Amino acid sequence: MDMSGSCEIVVVDFWANGFGMRVRIALEEKGIMYKYEEENLENPQRSQLVLDMNPVRKSVPILIDEGKPVCDSLAILEYIDERWKDGFPSLLPEDPYERAVARFWAQYVDNKIFDTQAKFLKSKGEKKEDVKKELIGQLKLLDDALGEKLYFGGDKFGYLDVAFIPFSSMFSGYECHGSFKLEEECPKLSAWVKRCLAREGVSRVLPDFHQMYEIHKKWYGVE
Amino acid sequence: MDMSGSCEIVVVDFWANGFGMRVRIALEEKGIMYKYEEENLENPQRSQLVLDMNPVRKSVPILIDEGKPVCDSLAILEYIDERWKDGFPSLLPEDPYERAVARFWAQYVDNKIFDTQAKFLKSKGEKKEDVKKELIGQLKLLDDALGEKLYFGGDKFGYLDVAFIPFSSMFSGYECHGSFKLEEECPKLSAWVKRCLAREGVSRVLPDFHQMYEIHKKWYGVE
Repeated sequence: MDMSGSCEIVVVDFWANGFGMRVRIALEEKGIMYKYEEENLENPQRSQLVLDMNPVRKSVPILIDEGKPVCDSLAILEYIDERWKDGFPSLLPEDPYERAVARFWAQYVDNKIFDTQAKFLKSKGEKKEDVKKELIGQLKLLDDALGEKLYFGGDKFGYLDVAFIPFSSMFSGYECHGSFKLEEECPKLSAWVKRCLAREGVSRVLPDFHQMYEIHKKWYGVE
Repeated sequence: MDMSGSCEIVVVDFWANGFGMRVRIALEEKGIMYKYEEENLENPQRSQLVLDMNPVRKSVPILIDEGKPVCDSLAILEYIDERWKDGFPSLLPEDPYERAVARFWAQYVDNKIFDTQAKFLKSKGEKKEDVKKELIGQLKLLDDALGEKLYFGGDKFGYLDVAFIPFSSMFSGYECHGSFKLEEECPKLSAWVKRCLAREGVSRVLPDFHQMYEIHKKWYGVE
């Protein structure tokens, strides 16, 4: 790997990887310049860079900070928040209890919503209706958790917003797929998506929704 | 729930729950007194306490701090470390990079080793040999990550030790199950387990290995 360039922060990622979008959004929001290395996940063979930098998981995203790799998207968010602390907008709140709540929901997104959305795209017939209800039910929990706040942590865009907003790049895909309107089911979440998309750091990272749906359909064998 | 007692910290957990052992070990190591509430996970019906305190996941462990619930075992560890900070032994190291490494491995344990050990117990015949190799391979990665250090973070028992040591309560179960010797495959990890078990805070929490293996066999339908 050539690390001789002037840019000392490198993100290795794939354009449609929601976990990696988190890392890119966090850097954008902090105002950190970084070099982007695209890893084509459609190619089953991982690049030498990924094999060298993440030999354990062989996955992206990877944040490379002056040659040292940081892996796992939520661990990277914590790292970014600690590495660029003073003078930078913070992602996690100050209060330990509020930090715990944000981390709880981020794990919820990874452990439940990620699996349910895949199941929704893959399932067929009657089963699909059941999974659709399950997915909407889970999104409603996030809608409730957001409540009347501007962002999940309050007035400031933060950790859980960063962790969850990449999933919104599939919301219109779910709508096309399952004939429901997120705006009707989860009006607060729907307004939050618009609010987040109005942020440069988010809109610069989130991909075109149609392209995102197309690649998901391919991944999950949707006809 | 009766929170009128003198004890303000409550842990709701099940004796054989590895994720919950983390929380109890962390409190023991910090020297925090807590009240223990057993939730019998063998009963499919969750208690009112769990339904009230963790309505989203309806799972344990739950740490209740003066009536406020914290859920998700790794989020609870972070909370414990931040809530009892000055004057208490810390779980996570100070350095952001080292913190990221510890968090990466904790997620690895949850995302890979937890699934592989379940697959190992459930699989049959030739398949079991393959999964055994996979499990040993994953444990060897932890063995390498530990290296010649006393604990994962260095000289001090910390975050990744807390997160991973509960899994050791099944190591002798795997040995009985798959006819291999952890001491031969992962000698450093094996010595680390003994070192951890010599700590009061760990030995008080980890259950009897035979009982642990018996309940796992029941859970995974092992004959």
